[in-house]
Amino acid sequence: MKRKRIAVVGTGAVGGYYGGLLALAGEDVEFLFRRDLAAVRAGGLVLRTREGERRLANVRAHGSTAEIGTVDVVLVAMKATGNGELPVLLAPLVRPGTLIVNLQNGLGAEEPLLAAFPAAEVAGMLCFVCNNRVAPGVIENSHPGYVVVGPASAGAAPGVADLADRLVGAGVKAKVTGNLEEARWRKLMWNVPFNGLAIAGGGITTDRIMADPDLIELAGGLMDEVMAGAAAHGHVIEPAFREAQFRVTRDMGPYKPSSLVDYLEGREVEVEAIWGEPSRRAGSRGAAVPRLEALYRLLGALTRAAVARRVSGGA
Amino acid sequence: MKRKRIAVVGTGAVGGYYGGLLALAGEDVEFLFRRDLAAVRAGGLVLRTREGERRLANVRAHGSTAEIGTVDVVLVAMKATGNGELPVLLAPLVRPGTLIVNLQNGLGAEEPLLAAFPAAEVAGMLCFVCNNRVAPGVIENSHPGYVVVGPASAGAAPGVADLADRLVGAGVKAKVTGNLEEARWRKLMWNVPFNGLAIAGGGITTDRIMADPDLIELAGGLMDEVMAGAAAHGHVIEPAFREAQFRVTRDMGPYKPSSLVDYLEGREVEVEAIWGEPSRRAGSRGAAVPRLEALYRLLGALTRAAVARRVSGGA
Repeated sequence: MKRKRIAVVGTGAVGGYYGGLLALAGEDVEFLFRRDLAAVRAGGLVLRTREGERRLANVRAHGSTAEIGTVDVVLVAMKATGNGELPVLLAPLVRPGTLIVNLQNGLGAEEPLLAAFPAAEVAGMLCFVCNNRVAPGVIENSHPGYVVVGPASAGAAPGVADLADRLVGAGVKAKVTGNLEEARWRKLMWNVPFNGLAIAGGGITTDRIMADPDLIELAGGLMDEVMAGAAAHGHVIEPAFREAQFRVTRDMGPYKPSSLVDYLEGREVEVEAIWGEPSRRAGSRGAAVPRLEALYRLLGALTRAAVARRVSGGA
Repeated sequence: MKRKRIAVVGTGAVGGYYGGLLALAGEDVEFLFRRDLAAVRAGGLVLRTREGERRLANVRAHGSTAEIGTVDVVLVAMKATGNGELPVLLAPLVRPGTLIVNLQNGLGAEEPLLAAFPAAEVAGMLCFVCNNRVAPGVIENSHPGYVVVGPASAGAAPGVADLADRLVGAGVKAKVTGNLEEARWRKLMWNVPFNGLAIAGGGITTDRIMADPDLIELAGGLMDEVMAGAAAHGHVIEPAFREAQFRVTRDMGPYKPSSLVDYLEGREVEVEAIWGEPSRRAGSRGAAVPRLEALYRLLGALTRAAVARRVSGGA
């Protein structure tokens, strides 16, 4: 397989995990760090899985994309709340034909990338996985799960297939989809209820959602609305997939969804990508999603207040 | 006016306020206390209003209803979460013709009283008021508001009119309604959104709801559903009444709705009366109230968790 240069932009729990696995498998991976740069330069990047701990000692850790230069593949794994910066942030990495892969949850991220980089190819990668950054440069995986990669631009398919192969070579269960939008709606079947109720339920782990009959009922109602939104866009999500979300969550134990981690630390939460944009897209096709919209409003208020508390030193 | 014996059952922020005003006006009022009994016996009952402080020195404070004996009027001002006890608790107070007046918010409290005391008369009293118990035996009123009294049993009308007169004599703005059920739905126009979002919004006062565009939007959506529920039962609530809820709330400043006070102290919240029963009654007539139902589910989980934390010593 021809050697490719891969850049990971936003090396947190997700970017660090997949970038780390690719690098451990011998791929040529450059990492952009923000807060963990010094820690990783000193101690490497540590991946903890159920099977044990692996350490990537010589991490190509960078503090800017200019330092990295152009690459073949960009894995965008920063939070969607910073997507306004992407045109400037990614510019030094992208040349014609570069494949920009968005690993974020939610809807609405690929379109601005296509507009900003018309000579590049764009794809999305959905990560059905449980990762938490437990310390600077230390990522803990509690549920290996799988990823789904799909093209968002006309010419992205070969690059997507190649990336999936490399992921499989790195030990990741990777599938390719021809319907990225449907895959995104399917991912929302978990993120909308579980990321949302972990915050709105008072800052609770997923096991506590699964232990409360009212929250299970509400999670189901939210899933029904995600299914209605998906259906309004032509994507049929089968009831068995709905049931599977509860089943996998039961197996996760006391997991903190990424949005809950952000909320508890008073950092911005991807409210627009996960709840706002799906709510608007469902509404634009006439699908009624009142629970989703109510949760969107409530999360907007809760997460802004948490950021305000941190900024003012209250939390 | 013929002298009447009035008993206040549950002397908190609402019962203490109206019972206290009636007693200060010379009415014959017996009070049932729980946690504040010793404080009131020692220091009296203190009512703080915008106009100043009034102290009822010789409070007829009791620790049991048996001590009080039968009365002409019972004002039921304890929390609805304890309504299962009412048949036993009120039995010593009630003789044929006694008027039992339920001061609680929400729906569903009068029917069990009618069933338990078929020889008594039953009424409801809606208190549009801002009171908080700020210390044992000390009640602070920040918004005098008004009350609406209405009969729930066939023969209650004369007693209701008499009670309204006595309240007016005690300085309370009191109106009589012939449609108690409609008055209860109207009261819910405030309690559903503002009591609810004060809790679900992270434990916030009403001014913070009114400062957040997402919460204002959500409050409006909840009011629309209360209106739909009311309409399904034949009660038309006009849009101007909806707007008035926002206006009066803006005037309240940083008010803690009673449900928020209960929640923050880890005590049971009237979730069934304020959100559960309205949600079920709307649904039983085919009115869609998904936001109300979602809030009901969420509040059930949040308030149970708060009680569990208190019981386990965590809060």
